Amino acid sequence: MKTHIHRVSIEWGHCDPARIVFYPRYFEWIDEATRHLFESVGLAWKTLFDRYGVVGCPITEAKCNFLSPSRFGDIIEIESGVKEWRDKGFTVGHRIVNAGKLAVEGHEQRVWVIQHPDDPKRLKPVPVPAEVRAALAG
Amino acid sequence: MKTHIHRVSIEWGHCDPARIVFYPRYFEWIDEATRHLFESVGLAWKTLFDRYGVVGCPITEAKCNFLSPSRFGDIIEIESGVKEWRDKGFTVGHRIVNAGKLAVEGHEQRVWVIQHPDDPKRLKPVPVPAEVRAALAG
Amino acid sequence: MKTHIHRVSIEWGHCDPARIVFYPRYFEWIDEATRHLFESVGLAWKTLFDRYGVVGCPITEAKCNFLSPSRFGDIIEIESGVKEWRDKGFTVGHRIVNAGKLAVEGHEQRVWVIQHPDDPKRLKPVPVPAEVRAALAG
Amino acid sequence: MKTHIHRVSIEWGHCDPARIVFYPRYFEWIDEATRHLFESVGLAWKTLFDRYGVVGCPITEAKCNFLSPSRFGDIIEIESGVKEWRDKGFTVGHRIVNAGKLAVEGHEQRVWVIQHPDDPKRLKPVPVPAEVRAALAG
Repeated sequence: MKTHIHRVSIEWGHCDPARIVFYPRYFEWIDEATRHLFESVGLAWKTLFDRYGVVGCPITEAKCNFLSPSRFGDIIEIESGVKEWRDKGFTVGHRIVNAGKLAVEGHEQRVWVIQHPDDPKRLKPVPVPAEVRAALAG
Repeated sequence: MKTHIHRVSIEWGHCDPARIVFYPRYFEWIDEATRHLFESVGLAWKTLFDRYGVVGCPITEAKCNFLSPSRFGDIIEIESGVKEWRDKGFTVGHRIVNAGKLAVEGHEQRVWVIQHPDDPKRLKPVPVPAEVRAALAG
Repeated sequence: MKTHIHRVSIEWGHCDPARIVFYPRYFEWIDEATRHLFESVGLAWKTLFDRYGVVGCPITEAKCNFLSPSRFGDIIEIESGVKEWRDKGFTVGHRIVNAGKLAVEGHEQRVWVIQHPDDPKRLKPVPVPAEVRAALAG
Repeated sequence: MKTHIHRVSIEWGHCDPARIVFYPRYFEWIDEATRHLFESVGLAWKTLFDRYGVVGCPITEAKCNFLSPSRFGDIIEIESGVKEWRDKGFTVGHRIVNAGKLAVEGHEQRVWVIQHPDDPKRLKPVPVPAEVRAALAG
């Protein structure tokens, strides 16, 4: 499995009155991390749009376990990789490490969709191209 | 000038480690307030898109003066109105009141744009329709 | 189980280039919904802080399943209730309905913590008071 | 004037249905840029707190002019410097450049505050230490 590390600097505005990261921010960052994982193997979102007509990769499930808090000034590293392929989708696993310690563990289930040929307002899940799977298998 | 009040409940995640609202949130809310102002006179964004082809009303300038902080649990009221019309744009004024006290005062300058007829990727400023001005004059 | 409905208006800035809600926003809103659930039974966060010394209720797990997208202009309703109690924590279940259709289903696992008596920088999980459980049992 | 460049990668979730950056995000980033400017001269927020007791540097005014939009996949550079000192505050100027083109120009007015000696819940503006000014004069 190909993995990629997305580094995030924890800013003042990411933290809440408990002085720790406000948890929805982690989901923003794992969303970013998935993008950068794809980009790291030459599959930029824009490229995917142009080449396969995929209109984003909508999320069907997102989950995080929060093991220890991160604070303003910390730098976290999100290690991401596609840990499961389904016919028309995939699961990205994310491990967030802060100063050598596992801080958050999570995943996103995403679907591979194109604009529906009969109705541009709808999306249609289609099989993930083999070359996309191969690129991310590492 | 027609005005509208947009009420916002200050949530935990809106506040930072200083235990006050993280200031970019106010810009989110005045953006929302402008939308609700238009909607309050029957000009929902969606209606505008359908009727005039306007693709949002891009911001050219946004400014806020922060007079007193708001905190988790507070309820603020944003009073908004179009205080100036230009040929192809307008300025929305916003006054945010918290428990009877003026907390933030700001404005947004926006442009009235359609998709450029020659290039759908570009925007083209066009005059604001008279009926739109009339509706917001109150 | 006592339930509470938190209503959210989907704003322009909540949506992404796919023209649907950017998914981390849902986690912001279920976090808010938990607060309003507690408040609806007379247990405002501030009250809890003053009465029990709890410093927020940190999240240990958050998960959502996204069943159908919501878009700018929609109004969603988040129905929340504590669906499980543990000795020093609880799980809040959330169901988000959009125009009568289940759009998102999720939960948050939270811990009941006070400032650690030996070190104000650390948190200490303690049993949830019986009266808090009772109030939320409905 | 000492300047610092804060680089930001425009992510999917930073953009709105018009496929451009949702403007409040720029205020998040100039807030971050100010922090990194101070840090670049050895004045990390944390250091300031420990050394001078300053509890953040609250904003009294924030303004941006938006000259051209940025989009998903772009990388922007925010050049920041303190362009004006007042007795108990300062103004940070920010210029955001995207692919060599000025995209946003803005500023923040901030106040130098400590916890009020008579009431820890209030803030008290005090003169900016000469060494802080000197460090940022470059």
